[in-house]
Amino acid sequence: MLLLGLGISAAWAVEGMWEPSQVPTQATGLAAAGFKGDVGALGRLDVAPLGAVASLGGFCTASFVSAEGLLVTNHHCVTGLLQQAQAEGEDLIDTGFVARTRGEERSVGPGGRVYLTTDIRDVTDDVLGKLPKKLGDAARDEAIEARMKQAVARCEKPGVRCRVASFYGGANYRLVTQTEFQDVRVVMAPPDSVGNYGDEIDNWHWPRHAGDFGFLRVYVGKDGKSAPYAPDNVPYRPAHHLTVQPKGVGPGDFVMVAGYPGSTDRWRTALEVERAATVELPNDIAEEQFLLDTFAEVAKADPAAGPVLEPARLSIANGMFNAKGTLEGYARTGIVAQAKARDAALRAWVAADPARKERFGAALDELDTVLRSGDATRERDELLAYLRYGSDLLEAAETVVLRARERTKKDADRLPGFQERDEARTRARFASMQKGLQLTADRRILGHYLGRLAVRSDCPPELRAWLGLPTTGEVAADAGAKAVDAAMIRLYGAAGKNDSGGGVAEGTLPPLAPASGPKAASVGRERSPEGDAAPGAASDRPRPRRSSGEDDREGAGAPSAPTPNLYRLDYRTQLLDLAADKLPADDAWISLAMALRPVRDAQRAEGRARGGALARLRPLYVEAMKAHDPARAYSDANSTLRLTYGTVQGYTPRDAVTYAPQTTLEGIAEKAGAWPFDAAPAHLAAITAKQYGPYVDTKLGSVPVDFLSDLDITGGNSGSPTLNAAGELVGLAFDGNYEGIASDWVFDTKVARTIHVDARYVLWYLDAVAQADGLVTELGQTPSL
Amino acid sequence: MLLLGLGISAAWAVEGMWEPSQVPTQATGLAAAGFKGDVGALGRLDVAPLGAVASLGGFCTASFVSAEGLLVTNHHCVTGLLQQAQAEGEDLIDTGFVARTRGEERSVGPGGRVYLTTDIRDVTDDVLGKLPKKLGDAARDEAIEARMKQAVARCEKPGVRCRVASFYGGANYRLVTQTEFQDVRVVMAPPDSVGNYGDEIDNWHWPRHAGDFGFLRVYVGKDGKSAPYAPDNVPYRPAHHLTVQPKGVGPGDFVMVAGYPGSTDRWRTALEVERAATVELPNDIAEEQFLLDTFAEVAKADPAAGPVLEPARLSIANGMFNAKGTLEGYARTGIVAQAKARDAALRAWVAADPARKERFGAALDELDTVLRSGDATRERDELLAYLRYGSDLLEAAETVVLRARERTKKDADRLPGFQERDEARTRARFASMQKGLQLTADRRILGHYLGRLAVRSDCPPELRAWLGLPTTGEVAADAGAKAVDAAMIRLYGAAGKNDSGGGVAEGTLPPLAPASGPKAASVGRERSPEGDAAPGAASDRPRPRRSSGEDDREGAGAPSAPTPNLYRLDYRTQLLDLAADKLPADDAWISLAMALRPVRDAQRAEGRARGGALARLRPLYVEAMKAHDPARAYSDANSTLRLTYGTVQGYTPRDAVTYAPQTTLEGIAEKAGAWPFDAAPAHLAAITAKQYGPYVDTKLGSVPVDFLSDLDITGGNSGSPTLNAAGELVGLAFDGNYEGIASDWVFDTKVARTIHVDARYVLWYLDAVAQADGLVTELGQTPSL
Repeated sequence: MLLLGLGISAAWAVEGMWEPSQVPTQATGLAAAGFKGDVGALGRLDVAPLGAVASLGGFCTASFVSAEGLLVTNHHCVTGLLQQAQAEGEDLIDTGFVARTRGEERSVGPGGRVYLTTDIRDVTDDVLGKLPKKLGDAARDEAIEARMKQAVARCEKPGVRCRVASFYGGANYRLVTQTEFQDVRVVMAPPDSVGNYGDEIDNWHWPRHAGDFGFLRVYVGKDGKSAPYAPDNVPYRPAHHLTVQPKGVGPGDFVMVAGYPGSTDRWRTALEVERAATVELPNDIAEEQFLLDTFAEVAKADPAAGPVLEPARLSIANGMFNAKGTLEGYARTGIVAQAKARDAALRAWVAADPARKERFGAALDELDTVLRSGDATRERDELLAYLRYGSDLLEAAETVVLRARERTKKDADRLPGFQERDEARTRARFASMQKGLQLTADRRILGHYLGRLAVRSDCPPELRAWLGLPTTGEVAADAGAKAVDAAMIRLYGAAGKNDSGGGVAEGTLPPLAPASGPKAASVGRERSPEGDAAPGAASDRPRPRRSSGEDDREGAGAPSAPTPNLYRLDYRTQLLDLAADKLPADDAWISLAMALRPVRDAQRAEGRARGGALARLRPLYVEAMKAHDPARAYSDANSTLRLTYGTVQGYTPRDAVTYAPQTTLEGIAEKAGAWPFDAAPAHLAAITAKQYGPYVDTKLGSVPVDFLSDLDITGGNSGSPTLNAAGELVGLAFDGNYEGIASDWVFDTKVARTIHVDARYVLWYLDAVAQADGLVTELGQTPSL
Repeated sequence: MLLLGLGISAAWAVEGMWEPSQVPTQATGLAAAGFKGDVGALGRLDVAPLGAVASLGGFCTASFVSAEGLLVTNHHCVTGLLQQAQAEGEDLIDTGFVARTRGEERSVGPGGRVYLTTDIRDVTDDVLGKLPKKLGDAARDEAIEARMKQAVARCEKPGVRCRVASFYGGANYRLVTQTEFQDVRVVMAPPDSVGNYGDEIDNWHWPRHAGDFGFLRVYVGKDGKSAPYAPDNVPYRPAHHLTVQPKGVGPGDFVMVAGYPGSTDRWRTALEVERAATVELPNDIAEEQFLLDTFAEVAKADPAAGPVLEPARLSIANGMFNAKGTLEGYARTGIVAQAKARDAALRAWVAADPARKERFGAALDELDTVLRSGDATRERDELLAYLRYGSDLLEAAETVVLRARERTKKDADRLPGFQERDEARTRARFASMQKGLQLTADRRILGHYLGRLAVRSDCPPELRAWLGLPTTGEVAADAGAKAVDAAMIRLYGAAGKNDSGGGVAEGTLPPLAPASGPKAASVGRERSPEGDAAPGAASDRPRPRRSSGEDDREGAGAPSAPTPNLYRLDYRTQLLDLAADKLPADDAWISLAMALRPVRDAQRAEGRARGGALARLRPLYVEAMKAHDPARAYSDANSTLRLTYGTVQGYTPRDAVTYAPQTTLEGIAEKAGAWPFDAAPAHLAAITAKQYGPYVDTKLGSVPVDFLSDLDITGGNSGSPTLNAAGELVGLAFDGNYEGIASDWVFDTKVARTIHVDARYVLWYLDAVAQADGLVTELGQTPSL
C-alpha cells in the first residue's frame, strides 16, 4: 500500500492519533486504507461512532453497544471494578461474572465513572492570550493554571465534567466537555483464565489468545440524568451506540480505533529521550522490581495478601515490562542517536536562516538548560516520589493534610484536584480504596524508601527531623535503620516477627470510631496524572510524577491523584471533615505528612518555575519542528479522544519468522495447561467439538480469537472499539506487540502492531461457553450454541 | 507431497534412519522426494557419498571434503578437540583457529580418532545361532558377549577397528568394520561467537544463526597407513570425498543426510516410555540441574574454572534441555497414552490368533516383568551411577581397579573395554583427559552423592564400611555428613574455607613422581556407551548407564567408558602398569574403588541376568510389532551408518506463526548484542556491507546461514554431511528443533525438523571473514571476498 504521489506516505497511513477535528484532513489516507463512509461524519462527536466512545477515566476506553447503556471494554479494564463490586469471599477476577438479569448487575461503588465527550473546542487564546511577556516563569505557570481553572469552572455543571488539555507541548489548549456518569455496574466479565489467558507470558506478545473483554452498564436517574448509584436508577439510553458486525474483518481489511490514548512522548527532545534511556527507565525498572519483589514476598508469607495486591501487581509488572521493552526498542531502533540527529538537523536548519535563528535559536538552548535544571536533585526527588507512590497510607495522609490547607483558600485558588469539583470524587475514592490496601506491603515499602532517604546527605531536613535524626550531614547506616525502625512502629505499630499478617492491630490506631470496612481492607493503587482514574483500575498504572512542573500543567483541571489511604475507612473519612488546625498532629501519619508538606511545596515551587519556562519554550520547539518536518501532524496523546486507522496485518518479527494476523480457538487449546494457560474444561470442550456456530471465519476455518493491525495506540486505548470500514464494531484493542513496545517514543511502522480481541470470539464465548444468551441478544445476535 | 497410492506415506518419506543395505528398498520414496542419482550406488560403502562419511567416535559424524584428507564437521564436535589442541594460555574455543599452512595444523593429541566404515555384514547367526534354549539368562548374556568378542577379534587388525552392533532390540547383529585413524589435526574452527552463536538461548531452536562448522584433517604414516601422531605423518588421501555444491538448496529441494546416529528409543515398550516420562527423565533433569548448579558455583568463585568445565557444562546443559523438551513433547503428543494404546493393540492382535498367542503371548508378559525387575533398587542404582558419572577421579580409580583385575584374565575373557584392543585408547585417554578436570567441582559432586547414598538404608554395606559407618540400618544425617566430610579429606585433602581453589595440595597425593601435567589440569568428561568417544568431545554427553544389562549388550565390543581420571597424569599412567595386588590400597581413591568393586560386580551380574532375558524377549516384541505394523521398517539408531532423506521445509510451530526454512546473514546482525550473540565487528561489517559474493541465494536476496529439513536425525548425526539430489555437499546437520525434541521416542512429521548450517555460509565465512583462502581453494572454490 504505497501511497507516494498522493502526498501521503504509507507510514503516515498507520502512524497518527488524530483529533476528531483532524479527521477530515485524513480523507485521502482513510480512503486509501479502505474506509468507505463519510469522512466528515467520522470526525463528529454527535453521531456514531465517536458519539458512542466513552472514557473510563483516563486508564481505559469503552463504547456503548446497545440502546440500554451497555458498554464493552477490556477485561483488564474491569478487573479493578470487579474487585470493588465483589462481596467478601468472592473473587470475581478469578471466577468471572455473568449477570443473568438487570437485577444481578453489580455496582462498582461510588468511584465508578464513565465520561462521554460531547465537545472539544480550542481555548488557546483564553489560556495564553495577553500573558505579559515579562512575566516570571513561576507566575506564568500560576497564571496559566488559573486560566485553565477558570475555563473549567465556566464549563462545568452537574453531570458535566470539563478539562483543559494541552496539545503540542503547550502550543495549543482545548477545552474538553464530557458527560460524567456515576452509576456504573458490572454486567459480565469472563474468568481470568479467559480475559487474562497467558498473563505475563503472553503479555505484549503475539500470537495472543486472550479474551480481553468485559461488559459494564451505565445507569442514570429516572429523569435520564447522571446520578450517583441508587437501586432504582435505570439504564442509560445513549444517543448513539455501535453495532456489532459478526462477519468480522480479515487480513488486509480496513480497521480503525477510537479511544482515549493517555500519553506519548513523540515530541520529546533528544535530551529527554536520552535521559529516559539512560536514567529514568532504568531507575523505574529497578524501583518496580523492588515493589514486585516485596509483593511476592508478602504474598508468599500470607496467601490472603495475593489477591489484594493483584491489581497493583499486574499494573506494575505491566509497566516494568513496558519499560524494559522500551529500552530494548531504543537499542534496536537506535532512537537516542536518531533523536540526536533529528535535533541536530533542526538546529542546523534553524541556524541556516536569520529569521529562524532569531525566533528559535535562544529558545532551543534555553529549553535544554531548563530540562537539565532538576538534574542535581533528581535522585532524591525520585525517592521522594516513590516514597508516596509505594505507600497508600502515606499518600492518604498527605492528601488529608494538603486538602485541609487548600480548603482554607477560595475555590478558584486551590490547587487542581483540591477544588470543590474534586470533593465527590475524593470521597468516593476514600470509600472505594479499601479493597487494595495491604499493610505488610505498605509497611515494607515505606520503610525501604524512608531508609534510603534518611542516610542521604540531601535528605530534606524536615524528614530527618521527623525521624529524629540530625538535620544535616552524614547519617550512619545503622543510625538511619534504627530511626526508620522506630518510625515504622509509630506508623504501623509493632510488627509480628514474621511481619506476614494483615498488619497493624486495631488498638494501635487512634480510637475514633469502630472500624466499619472489611478487616483486611484495601486501597486502589491507581494514580492517573489527571486524577480521573476510576477506583480500582488495574491497568496502565502511571509511574510517580516527575517534578517537572510541566507535567502538572498538562494535567491541569485533572490534578495529581489525591488517593487517600489511611487504614480505616471511617477514620480517613472523618479526617476529610477536619480543618487544618484540627488535624491530629499526634497521629504519626499526619505528623509525617505535615513534615513532608514544606518539602512537597518546595518541589512544587521548583516545578512551577520549570513549568512556566517550558510553557514558553516547548511550543517554540514544536513550532520549529513542525516547520522543519511538516509530516509531524498530530499531537502527543493526552487522554483526549483520538482516531487511528490502518489495516489488519501480520508482520515479520525476525529473520525467518512470520506472524499471521489472526489466532484461532485451536491456538487456545494448543497453549492450554498450567496457569496462566488454565483454560476451563468446558471452554476447551467447546473448542475440541469445533462448535463454531455462526462465528466461524470460513477462510480461517475456525473462530478468530485475537487479531493484529498496524494501528497506532497506547495506554488509555485499552478497551477501545475496533471498527470496520462501515464503522461497525469488529473487535476491541487491548495491547501492543513487543516489537512495537517503544512506540510511545517512536512508531516503527514495519513491526509496531495493535492487538485486538475479535468480536466473533467475544460473541462465541458469550454464546458457546458463558451461555450468556441475554447479552448475545442485546448485542443484536441470535444465540445458537 | 502426499505419496499415498505409491505404497508409501508422506510420514515415511521423512521418518527413517536407513541402513546402507536398506537404501535400495527406498527407491520409490527417494525418487518421490527428488533424488536423481543411482539408488544402488547410494547404498554402497565403497563409493561416495557413503564412502566419504566418517565417525568421530560415536558422538559426531564428519565427512571427507578434499583429496587431502580434509574433514568437515560441526563446531560443537571440535570444541573438545580444540581444548586438547591448545597450548596453555590459549582459548581456541573462544578465539577460533585457522591454520594458514599444513604446518600450523594442530594435533588433537593421542585420543583423536576418526573411523571410516568399510564393511557391514550380518552376523546374527554367529551371535545367536545354536544357543541352547535352556541356557540361563546370565549365561546367555555371557555367551552372546563372548561370541561378539570373538567376531570382533577375528575382524580386527592394525588400523582396523570392528564392533558387533545389535539391531531391532537384539533380533539382528551386524559386524561393522572401520578403518581407524589416529592422527587427527585441527585445521579451522570459527570462534565460539560464530560456531555457538546463540548458545543455550538458541540451542534446539529455530530460527537459528549458528555457524556450526569446523575442519579437521586426517594424517597417516608415509606408507599411507593409519598411524599414531608423528610430526612427519602426511595427509591421508581418502578414496572418496564429497564435492561442495555452492549453489546450495532451497525450499522444497531434496536433501539427505548420511551419518552415525547414536541412539533412539522408538521400539521401546509402553512400560519403558512411561517410566522415562515419570521417573527417568525427571530424575535426570534433577541430577543434571545439581551438576550445572555446582559448576556455576565453582566457576563463580574461581573464574579460571569456567573454561575448564565448559565442555562438560555445554554437554550436560544440552542433555538437560533435551530431557525437558522431551518431557514437554511427551505431554504435547500424549506419547505415553499412544504407546499404551499401541501396546494394547499389539496384545489384542496377539491374543486374537492362537499361533501368535503361542509365539508371543508369554514373552510379552515376561518382557514387562523383566523390565520391572530393577525397580526396587532403581533409586539407589541411579545414585551409584551418578556417583561415578559426576566424579572424574572416581571413574579413573574404578577403571584402574577393574582393569587390573581384568588383565589377570585371558584376553578373550575380559570385559568389553578392558581387552588388549582397548589398551591404546585407554592410555590415550589417560593422557588427554587432563584438561577438563576441575577438582573443586569433582569434590563437591562426589561428596554430594556419597552423602545421599550414605544415609539410605539400602546403601551398599561395602560403601558404608568404607565410610566408617554401620553397614546396616539407619544412619543419622549428621553422622552421614560427618563421615562424608572425613572421606572428602582422605580423598582430596583439606579444602580451603572457600573451597574455591584448584583443589588438592600436591603433598596430599602419594609421592610417586613429580607432576608433569599443567597445574589445574583437566579430564574430558565424555563417556560414550561405546567407549569410542574421542577425548574432549563436548557434545552428546550420554547419561550414566542404567543397569539394564541389555544396554551393555548393545554396546558390546564398545564397553562402558573406562575414563581414568586421577589428578596427576604421571600417577594415573603409572597405575595402569601395576598388577592388581600391587595397587596402592592405602590410596583413598583406590580403596574406595576397591570397596565399590563388589557393588559394581553385583550390579553387573543383575544386569547380565536382565540382559540375557531381554536378549530372548525383546526380539519377539519387535517381531510381533513388525508383523502387526509392517511400516516400522528400520531399527533404532545404534551409532552405525544410516541415511535419512526428505526435503528442505519450514513448519508452523504454533497458531499464527510460520517458520521459513532458511535464515540469512541479516538475521545474525538482527540478533547481535551481548553474549551469546557477540558477533565480531568484522563479521557484522561484512554483513552490513552486503558483501555476499558468489554465495548469495538470489531468491532469498542474501547468503543463507542455516536451513531446515524434515530429515530424521539424532545425537551422533552432528556434523553429518547434508547432500543434494546429486549427492553433493550443501550443508551440515547440527541440531533438531524444539518441537521435534521428543523425536528419539516418536517422530512427529508435522513439526520435527533437522537444522543444518548452509554450505554457502561456511564458504562465505571462510572467504569474507576468516580470509581462509587456502581452505576455500581446497574446497574447490575460488576466493573472491
